[in-house]
Amino acid sequence: MREALKLAQRGADLGEVPIGAVIVKDNHIVSQAHNWRETWRDPTAHAELVAIREASRVLGGWRLEGCQLYVTLEPCPMCAGAIMLSRLDAVYYGAADPKGGAVESKLHTFQSGLWNHDPKFHGGILADECGMILKEFFRTLRERRS
Amino acid sequence: MREALKLAQRGADLGEVPIGAVIVKDNHIVSQAHNWRETWRDPTAHAELVAIREASRVLGGWRLEGCQLYVTLEPCPMCAGAIMLSRLDAVYYGAADPKGGAVESKLHTFQSGLWNHDPKFHGGILADECGMILKEFFRTLRERRS
Repeated sequence: MREALKLAQRGADLGEVPIGAVIVKDNHIVSQAHNWRETWRDPTAHAELVAIREASRVLGGWRLEGCQLYVTLEPCPMCAGAIMLSRLDAVYYGAADPKGGAVESKLHTFQSGLWNHDPKFHGGILADECGMILKEFFRTLRERRS
Repeated sequence: MREALKLAQRGADLGEVPIGAVIVKDNHIVSQAHNWRETWRDPTAHAELVAIREASRVLGGWRLEGCQLYVTLEPCPMCAGAIMLSRLDAVYYGAADPKGGAVESKLHTFQSGLWNHDPKFHGGILADECGMILKEFFRTLRERRS
């Protein structure tokens, strides 16, 4: 999660909402990404989605069994869907997202019993730091605008 | 939807699950894609997601306001999430997906009142043809395997 936080900061330096994601297999980092939405002008370029695409490229296949995702913010519905499709084993996230979280906040995607792959998950890891970097980013943004 | 069906067939010819998507703005096609998951080895390369990314590139921004998506199969949770994130105006789909549909079948993503963008939607457009191309694809696949 420390690596994911570093990525989030790198995103913030580019004007991206600071969220970072790292995919790990056998204790090695397979892929890492921050949010790229603004730079790439791509609404799907969330850190998790970019990291999943990169991990698939690195591992040579779309099934990410045996992999774990670390992400600084609770995944949104799109990313929760991508996590199921990629068959990731587990998701560990930092801050909860009361407005957009699809793991425990607004939806319980992985506990619904509706889908054919339910990864393990655990939230709240370095939650204060993961939340703080977001708060700081939006505070600075508001100050610049006013 | 006829264009989306043609794309689905092109996908099938490449061994992709035949789903096609077209994004339209002011009655002009902005982007189009079929499923690319197997060829690209990318679990996120659903027709809708690829079309959304391409439309953002073509239009030069991640907000697809004023755009409509036509897709041959009811979107999954990931794609429904991407549709909300991209602010598409409306989604028109062909066949329902009882196993994985996140618009009307298994989830009612756009009617949940949980998210900050709820596109209009309408399903069942050329549903028989959109469903048939999928059935035919999986029938052929089973025959080849047995």
